[in-house]
Amino acid sequence: IYTLGIDVGSTASKCIMLKDGKEIVSKSLVSVGTGTSGPQRAIEEVLKNAGKTREDMDYTLATGYGRNSLEGIADKQMSELSCHAKGAFFLFPKVHTVIDIGGQDVKVLKIENGAMVNFQMNDKCAAGTGRFLDVMARVLEVNIEDLEKLSAESTKRIGISSTCTVFAESEVISQLAQGTDKRDIIAGIHRAIAGRVAGLVHRVGLVPDVVMTGGVAQNHGVVKALEEQLSCEIKTSPLTQYNGALGAALFAYQGALKHAKA
Amino acid sequence: IYTLGIDVGSTASKCIMLKDGKEIVSKSLVSVGTGTSGPQRAIEEVLKNAGKTREDMDYTLATGYGRNSLEGIADKQMSELSCHAKGAFFLFPKVHTVIDIGGQDVKVLKIENGAMVNFQMNDKCAAGTGRFLDVMARVLEVNIEDLEKLSAESTKRIGISSTCTVFAESEVISQLAQGTDKRDIIAGIHRAIAGRVAGLVHRVGLVPDVVMTGGVAQNHGVVKALEEQLSCEIKTSPLTQYNGALGAALFAYQGALKHAKA
Ligand code: SF4
Repeated sequence: IYTLGIDVGSTASKCIMLKDGKEIVSKSLVSVGTGTSGPQRAIEEVLKNAGKTREDMDYTLATGYGRNSLEGIADKQMSELSCHAKGAFFLFPKVHTVIDIGGQDVKVLKIENGAMVNFQMNDKCAAGTGRFLDVMARVLEVNIEDLEKLSAESTKRIGISSTCTVFAESEVISQLAQGTDKRDIIAGIHRAIAGRVAGLVHRVGLVPDVVMTGGVAQNHGVVKALEEQLSCEIKTSPLTQYNGALGAALFAYQGALKHAKA
Repeated sequence: IYTLGIDVGSTASKCIMLKDGKEIVSKSLVSVGTGTSGPQRAIEEVLKNAGKTREDMDYTLATGYGRNSLEGIADKQMSELSCHAKGAFFLFPKVHTVIDIGGQDVKVLKIENGAMVNFQMNDKCAAGTGRFLDVMARVLEVNIEDLEKLSAESTKRIGISSTCTVFAESEVISQLAQGTDKRDIIAGIHRAIAGRVAGLVHRVGLVPDVVMTGGVAQNHGVVKALEEQLSCEIKTSPLTQYNGALGAALFAYQGALKHAKA
């Protein structure tokens, strides 16, 4: 049985193909999300990678912010909260807290026995999200991919006291004007994000194991800053960016089984 | 008796000189605030306007975000909340609600018999503040002073659904890309600010008369949008920008009287 999970986010589209609900056959990521050709291209890519066609798929499930744009293509739509819980539990069976930092939102999920029992979400504010990092990288004139490396070279602890993207941007501009080393500023930015996200984590209640997912989890500077703030180890994997899509593909497998019986 | 009130804000410095605690002799406004020469220049200007010297002043009181930078110059410092309540009550004796939108914060004060009994403040988020308007004016390439006039010419109601400055900026950029008339976008921006501020007002509880103060009160496009949202008349005056400084000068008068007795 082959199933497809598609996560249509605000800034990226991700796809996972699963065999028999346990083996990841293929994955794809296109760096544009809802309202673009991204979801379609992600599907084409995941099929091509596996040498399969849409007809070979037994069940397709869409999740994420833009999941409703895939009506007619997906057999079912499902909330990203459920899919994130499912995906994280598959990757890390001992997970109890999932911190997902996406391009435009932050979600913290509490998980018991693989199911979500509580959550907190910040989806109306750019503070602490991938967008925050985008804004800062632009002001600092560095590539977003270089933030992790640069922050690791920081030697002086400086404070970015605002968590608001707009006010933090002003702080960064004034630090630059004062001649502060960019690497120290970047480390400060990572701590600012961590501070914001930690607030959300504490509202849900921190229970290990803690898993971090979403695009920002690829930046280990943020992960480390958050570990420091939470005094707790945080697990990530290169697959965590695909966490929502993976959960969708797992739910798709359940859908395929039900469908086969009916 | 001559007293001086100085309001050192985040983006402007304002000064009021009072005679006998009731007559405004002179006022000044310099468009830079704390950490600059603005406060000093505002004081020099208010004295020059009145043909007075610092020695003629019986008592000087400082308020606002940067009030502590005036130690040595002011006889006393006082919180801007108290000064705003005092100033608004002097200008509008029937006031029960003061909405102050500053360059970097929004405050809503509930007033009974001229004293503040409750308040709500948003000082960690640029949404709904003067900064929000600055960001939008920059993206739209219009002068901040022209926003009111332009919004009055709007003919089509468009929605800016985000109140977050960062996300609203993206909406404005995409509206511009779609060719939407700038005047309609500006009216939408004013409604977005009004929506944010109205939320804060409702948390305090709306009791007329409602007075709006601070720099943004000079933009009647915002005032009208807020009147619409609150279904309630809002009073302003050209003096409301000096509201904090006025309150400070009034408290300075009390200080001078006490001082004279002692
Ligand atoms: S805190 Fe800053 S980033 Fe967050 S909603 Fe307010 S303006 Fe937006």
